[in-house]
Amino acid sequence: MLLDRLRDLLGHDHVLTGADMAGFGEEFTGHYHWQPLAVLRPATTEEVSGILRLASESGTPVVPVSGGTGLNGGHEAEGRLMISLARMNRIRDFNPAARTIAVEAGVILQTIHDHVAEAGLMFPLSFGAKGSAMVGGFLSTNAGGSNVVRYGNARALCLGLEVVMADGAVMNLMTALHKDNTGYDLRDLMIGAEGTLGVITAAMLHLVPAPTARATALLALPGFAQALSLLNRVQAGTGGAVEAYEYLPDLFFDRMAKYKPDWTCPITPAPVNILLEIATTVPGDTPQSRLEDLLEAPLEAGDILDAVVASSDAQRNYLWHMRESAAEVSLNEDPLVDTDVSLPLDLIEPWLNRMNAEVARLDPKARMMAIGHLGDGNLHYTVYPSDKGFVAPIRDAISREAVVMGGSFSAEHGVGLSKLGSMAKYKDPVALRTMRAIKAALDPKNILNPGKTVPEA
Amino acid sequence: MLLDRLRDLLGHDHVLTGADMAGFGEEFTGHYHWQPLAVLRPATTEEVSGILRLASESGTPVVPVSGGTGLNGGHEAEGRLMISLARMNRIRDFNPAARTIAVEAGVILQTIHDHVAEAGLMFPLSFGAKGSAMVGGFLSTNAGGSNVVRYGNARALCLGLEVVMADGAVMNLMTALHKDNTGYDLRDLMIGAEGTLGVITAAMLHLVPAPTARATALLALPGFAQALSLLNRVQAGTGGAVEAYEYLPDLFFDRMAKYKPDWTCPITPAPVNILLEIATTVPGDTPQSRLEDLLEAPLEAGDILDAVVASSDAQRNYLWHMRESAAEVSLNEDPLVDTDVSLPLDLIEPWLNRMNAEVARLDPKARMMAIGHLGDGNLHYTVYPSDKGFVAPIRDAISREAVVMGGSFSAEHGVGLSKLGSMAKYKDPVALRTMRAIKAALDPKNILNPGKTVPEA
Repeated sequence: MLLDRLRDLLGHDHVLTGADMAGFGEEFTGHYHWQPLAVLRPATTEEVSGILRLASESGTPVVPVSGGTGLNGGHEAEGRLMISLARMNRIRDFNPAARTIAVEAGVILQTIHDHVAEAGLMFPLSFGAKGSAMVGGFLSTNAGGSNVVRYGNARALCLGLEVVMADGAVMNLMTALHKDNTGYDLRDLMIGAEGTLGVITAAMLHLVPAPTARATALLALPGFAQALSLLNRVQAGTGGAVEAYEYLPDLFFDRMAKYKPDWTCPITPAPVNILLEIATTVPGDTPQSRLEDLLEAPLEAGDILDAVVASSDAQRNYLWHMRESAAEVSLNEDPLVDTDVSLPLDLIEPWLNRMNAEVARLDPKARMMAIGHLGDGNLHYTVYPSDKGFVAPIRDAISREAVVMGGSFSAEHGVGLSKLGSMAKYKDPVALRTMRAIKAALDPKNILNPGKTVPEA
Repeated sequence: MLLDRLRDLLGHDHVLTGADMAGFGEEFTGHYHWQPLAVLRPATTEEVSGILRLASESGTPVVPVSGGTGLNGGHEAEGRLMISLARMNRIRDFNPAARTIAVEAGVILQTIHDHVAEAGLMFPLSFGAKGSAMVGGFLSTNAGGSNVVRYGNARALCLGLEVVMADGAVMNLMTALHKDNTGYDLRDLMIGAEGTLGVITAAMLHLVPAPTARATALLALPGFAQALSLLNRVQAGTGGAVEAYEYLPDLFFDRMAKYKPDWTCPITPAPVNILLEIATTVPGDTPQSRLEDLLEAPLEAGDILDAVVASSDAQRNYLWHMRESAAEVSLNEDPLVDTDVSLPLDLIEPWLNRMNAEVARLDPKARMMAIGHLGDGNLHYTVYPSDKGFVAPIRDAISREAVVMGGSFSAEHGVGLSKLGSMAKYKDPVALRTMRAIKAALDPKNILNPGKTVPEA
């Protein structure tokens, strides 16, 4: 009956059931498997609104999904209606002079990158899954990635939103203004809410001038102390031009040799390896020679053990390709604990030491590896436990130890299902109560991605 | 009875009534006058929590106030309990290495500037009232000011918050992290909410390296076309180093000559005058010569008619002092319509033309003047009507014409009371409904600054 009405709304081809739902019942991590009630493929905001109206009337839970690259069970949808935004893939407006682009929720991140590049502009959000991640998902998780150190996360790059609310009403917040204080900040409330407060159908994104020149290096360093001191040196010496400061441990290159045998690392890896990129939009600036100058003294002092500075776009792309294979190279075992903690920068090394000791205590046969966006304090600390039974206690320990040191157990991947336990235990109780009140107020029938993001009381 | 309990809580000296409340019953604009029930002066978060508990139990409305420099009736408090945060003026923690400062709601903006300057850091929020505006107020209105073009508004500079909720519960969101996605973005919801969702008692603010060199100029230009083209030229030529791009009309200097007769403008004012500042943190950079180079061609082409580049700190301070006297020089008549609209940059001139024609139609004897943060599209369009009766229709027309052209009727001063009518008429109705639902959920007894920010249904 409901499905019939949805077929009337969307057309028969866009209400998938049974075997047609292949690919919509599993997460990339392999941690979550589900059987949706149906997969809906609306092409317009009006159709999303119609779906929500029907879902609301019938009290049927819905789960929005766009690129489906989430890592925390945020789009798990057992017995629920999945709303795939993939057909909402229009670029509604591109205004190079105003440096804005209005895009629908199903536009792929890489498509935005390519589209604006021709006008000398850049949308600075970037991460490994950029070839499949879409607007709806990267906003709903407030995604981060490699360039946050300079440009901020998804939230900082979004000016306006269009959101379909629980009862199907369309909320139009599609401003392109940089200053707009007309009441509560509903935009930022919807960003990062993982579809639990509304379904994002379109966004007005903020663009920046594309760098006119870049310098990219892969560096091997003896430890974190040298890495942080180098970060400060390069930031000071360039006026804050660090676009990316990515940490890769020697273990990463061991795994790369195993899983990507065709690739070769152009340096001899050390305990701390850094993919560093600086960029400029100042005419006449020469970041490559500036970077080489800045690296000289630490190289002589032994604070950098090995270094390669990319001398061509192809070399730069190769370095980035290695970095962006991290998910593929590190999240390919089972059992697995994948995390995205953030920490004050100066506490990263002490935290890693504490954490490695704690995991070894819980599961002496576990292996661990951390990769991260060192420039903004975000670590992907991954554990390969010796048994599935260790997954939950290790995950809990990681959250606890992050919070104890002033960090967060959720930096950029969202809460979804996998961090609900950490939310319940480690998030401020008044904040939790406030979130529940907002959820109940905006989704009184609890049909929007229920059971995600905010743990039940 | 309630006042007795409040005296028990705060001490007799910190519950002001009658004549002791002098200075707490009027807005700077002169537009609002009121008689509070009492003025409370808590010194700690616990005391604020105790006040809210008592207010909640007794259903007594409270109005928070910090510096009291608001311009839209946001702290009007007829018959209400005012909570002055001025005694909560401690700097809780200053961490130069992490570039953060934790401050209480009663710390004055200028105090933050001075405190961090010694460590070579800067808190970039700045506006005319910086000598009296305080943390609680500039966050509750999401204040903007002169440096938004480079650093964003108050929201962009705040990492964490401490907020006392309607029932007295203390919500601890005092993170110093740049990536923290543990659930809904309650911080940004509280920022800009004008005390209607909670009382901000402390904040973790983000600092930036202070510029090592600056160049500041006052320029006279024939029109807005030349001003926008110059902005783009300087942004491109400096890699986005424009810290401020402030518009002052010739009328401003006429008023300055009248109200500040001791001051002299160092250039011959033209229709469009720009206070331009660029800055750098790159060692060895010479912004002054760079700016002079960039100004040369437009000067020769007649796109700049007159120019002075400050050659000393004293000259720079003089230029800024003129700009920051704008409120004093422009908001000193009665009747008065003061506004803070924002517009797409390329529509500023068409909007001004339209607006001036519309105001002349409504009140042929009205005079108008616009001052603004041109770099981020924010205009303070001020009208001096010939009669009080024109205030409301002119205010409404300004809001309407801003929204019609893709702008906002509230850029940086907050909504308070004076823009409630515009909210009701021009804000997206689904957004209004959503705001009301959030307000009802977080403040069920409607005691937090009731009747402000969000118009009743």
